[in-house]
Amino acid sequence: MTDGTYETLRYAVDEDGIATITLDRPDALNSFTVQMHHELIDVITRAGQDDSARAVIVTGAGRAFCAGMDLSAEGNVFGIAEDREPTPAEVAERPTDPDMLDGIRDTGGKVTLAIFRCPKPVIAAINGPAVGIGATMTCAMDFRLASSSAKIGFVFGRLGIVPEAASSWFLPRIVGLQTALELCYTAEVRGAQEMADLGFVRSVHEPDELLPAAKELARRLVQGRSPVGVALTRWMLYRNSAATHPFEAHAVESIAMQQTSMGDGKEGVAAFLDKREAEFTSRASELPAFVPWDPRDQIVP
Amino acid sequence: MTDGTYETLRYAVDEDGIATITLDRPDALNSFTVQMHHELIDVITRAGQDDSARAVIVTGAGRAFCAGMDLSAEGNVFGIAEDREPTPAEVAERPTDPDMLDGIRDTGGKVTLAIFRCPKPVIAAINGPAVGIGATMTCAMDFRLASSSAKIGFVFGRLGIVPEAASSWFLPRIVGLQTALELCYTAEVRGAQEMADLGFVRSVHEPDELLPAAKELARRLVQGRSPVGVALTRWMLYRNSAATHPFEAHAVESIAMQQTSMGDGKEGVAAFLDKREAEFTSRASELPAFVPWDPRDQIVP
Amino acid sequence: MTDGTYETLRYAVDEDGIATITLDRPDALNSFTVQMHHELIDVITRAGQDDSARAVIVTGAGRAFCAGMDLSAEGNVFGIAEDREPTPAEVAERPTDPDMLDGIRDTGGKVTLAIFRCPKPVIAAINGPAVGIGATMTCAMDFRLASSSAKIGFVFGRLGIVPEAASSWFLPRIVGLQTALELCYTAEVRGAQEMADLGFVRSVHEPDELLPAAKELARRLVQGRSPVGVALTRWMLYRNSAATHPFEAHAVESIAMQQTSMGDGKEGVAAFLDKREAEFTSRASELPAFVPWDPRDQIVP
Repeated sequence: MTDGTYETLRYAVDEDGIATITLDRPDALNSFTVQMHHELIDVITRAGQDDSARAVIVTGAGRAFCAGMDLSAEGNVFGIAEDREPTPAEVAERPTDPDMLDGIRDTGGKVTLAIFRCPKPVIAAINGPAVGIGATMTCAMDFRLASSSAKIGFVFGRLGIVPEAASSWFLPRIVGLQTALELCYTAEVRGAQEMADLGFVRSVHEPDELLPAAKELARRLVQGRSPVGVALTRWMLYRNSAATHPFEAHAVESIAMQQTSMGDGKEGVAAFLDKREAEFTSRASELPAFVPWDPRDQIVP
Repeated sequence: MTDGTYETLRYAVDEDGIATITLDRPDALNSFTVQMHHELIDVITRAGQDDSARAVIVTGAGRAFCAGMDLSAEGNVFGIAEDREPTPAEVAERPTDPDMLDGIRDTGGKVTLAIFRCPKPVIAAINGPAVGIGATMTCAMDFRLASSSAKIGFVFGRLGIVPEAASSWFLPRIVGLQTALELCYTAEVRGAQEMADLGFVRSVHEPDELLPAAKELARRLVQGRSPVGVALTRWMLYRNSAATHPFEAHAVESIAMQQTSMGDGKEGVAAFLDKREAEFTSRASELPAFVPWDPRDQIVP
Repeated sequence: MTDGTYETLRYAVDEDGIATITLDRPDALNSFTVQMHHELIDVITRAGQDDSARAVIVTGAGRAFCAGMDLSAEGNVFGIAEDREPTPAEVAERPTDPDMLDGIRDTGGKVTLAIFRCPKPVIAAINGPAVGIGATMTCAMDFRLASSSAKIGFVFGRLGIVPEAASSWFLPRIVGLQTALELCYTAEVRGAQEMADLGFVRSVHEPDELLPAAKELARRLVQGRSPVGVALTRWMLYRNSAATHPFEAHAVESIAMQQTSMGDGKEGVAAFLDKREAEFTSRASELPAFVPWDPRDQIVP
């Protein structure tokens, strides 16, 4: 990780333990650059390990959330091919080989995989246009709250390219296949209320009330909650939404229940029986040893 | 299986072939105990093999459906660690090893895996508060009908523990990821109508009309239907909702179609062409030899 | 492939590049036969390779969409067991063995797997009754538009048989598990608006406006789009909706982004920066070498 100073974003944690990551290139509508991708991975990893932060909000400075990839940047406009590009023959021969992939990994996907590994709830507060990677990065966040002035578009199709940021994994799990296909094929930019009707946006707010609503939701998610319990709950829901048999969920839940019941759960039950507030002491920076149970989560971003 | 007498629940089959399992600890709001977990597995297995029972309704005696784990019980309050607990090192080394798991298997998950294996439709008739395992056990049932006075909460987070009963597998498949995360993180108890708006509850009924509505739905599911056809339909939808490629569904459906078309299907087509009611003779207690096609279903509860 | 003449259907491509496949046995309510299954696989494969066709609409001639399997046909009414039937013992021993399956492959599933492999958007324009295979074949299409007079039913249960055409894979991904189970168990025929309320039908139209609406949607999906970009988007959403980890989506998306950004994406960005319409030159008949990345897609229909 870096020293925590960033050029493309800001990071702050309030007294309630709510961290806010603000994309901060307002003159460029917070468009996404290779530097922003590095800084987002860094700050999300930092927020995950920062025990003073219990939940994470991502929003944009100025009038946009994120206007997509910065197409005015020199070269490398899609953020891929940082080091070297494999030949088409190499791709055809071993399409899922991590070594081959090294040179062409989509920067948006590296960011959403970092979000996927975050042990804390992540909320998108979509304050304005969220287009391209600005839309797909929010698919990996747990909730999408939107300003009534927000507009959201999976516009890749207009440019002759494809949705990224692992959105082809997340989006169908949020809105179902029929709506996911329509959003991606049409590549249209739609208003906040329409995206709420389609199940993508959780709730629509007046512009002035968006950040307060996101913070209020964040507090409901983590206040009086066990940090380790929250982390395990998050991971279990994402991973088991994709598990091929409920026994896989049962196996991990059994371990998670055992481990939490020896820790914060003991205090939780005692407090419940005493009718007092529980005082949980676990830390998301010190997770039980069986985490991560899926070796694919150890892949470097 | 036991001799069919139970202390924590009642089992009855009516003349229409609808079995009703009634959680029956009304003075304790039908809270869940280790004994109830053994008896639920027994009675669900029994209902699955009882050819006089065509569908199963689960409801609660008195004013609650199930108020969660009985936290007043001595020791073992989470129902785990019946025999021995593995050390954290053992868990870390082999988190999905069935032998390691033996000592710590979540009792709620053992019940929902028994429901998962049931060859008959299972309907939750949620007559009152359904909290903790009272909520998660219904995730493995095919339909959730609720009294207007019901309240439902995935309250684990308040106790510093995690959702269980394989709910991290079932819940996202019912309501999608965004809603599943909100229900589990917030750990809030919500009313029946709100849970219907979120897609969790199928329909809300006046308290007096809940059980009649559940029975009416049950009749629509099984009257004039082939017992083997219903069983295969149930399993195919659950298992293939998690299959990684449609070819897997195609393979099993082809066999299921072939096997049913040589059995009840022959009578079904003849009756259709004769414009008379079909008289199906298959029995769920005698399933085709290719069942279960997934070896993971042979895991003992 | 055949010479492109068909007895059970018609195929035409309009000047906007919208192909229409019309099931054309109106006197038999377009009921499904073994011949129709062969011709559907042929025409879908043809449409996929025909660069003048950018999207595909499937509809029915006369007053029905498809009234299900033609049960009046001699023998083989379910369309299975074309060559030889394996014994029950063979099925039990190797239920997913392709060789064993050869003799009993469900004809509906062979059609929907052909649709699954199609590199173009596929729209069902359900102009009237869609029952049995008439309902399940539309599950594999990207969108279901329906006439207000359409009726849709997964009626297999009435005949003592089971849903097919890989619908147990597609249907839960469209409407969720609770609704999928209800549609299949009850085997009831439901109106277009009710099926829209349940999330199965995308939109309901006056009978005269159905085909125009389907064509208008088709144009929104493909006009000004890259043929290769559309094909990759389609496959990524379907396959990654079933991938067990978002890293799998990330790997394929990275390659797809790299390959499209070297092709149509270069023109797309240039046109965007020049504020002109892009002129894409890729062809769906010449896909990048890494396609199909899933070896299961090479299985012959």
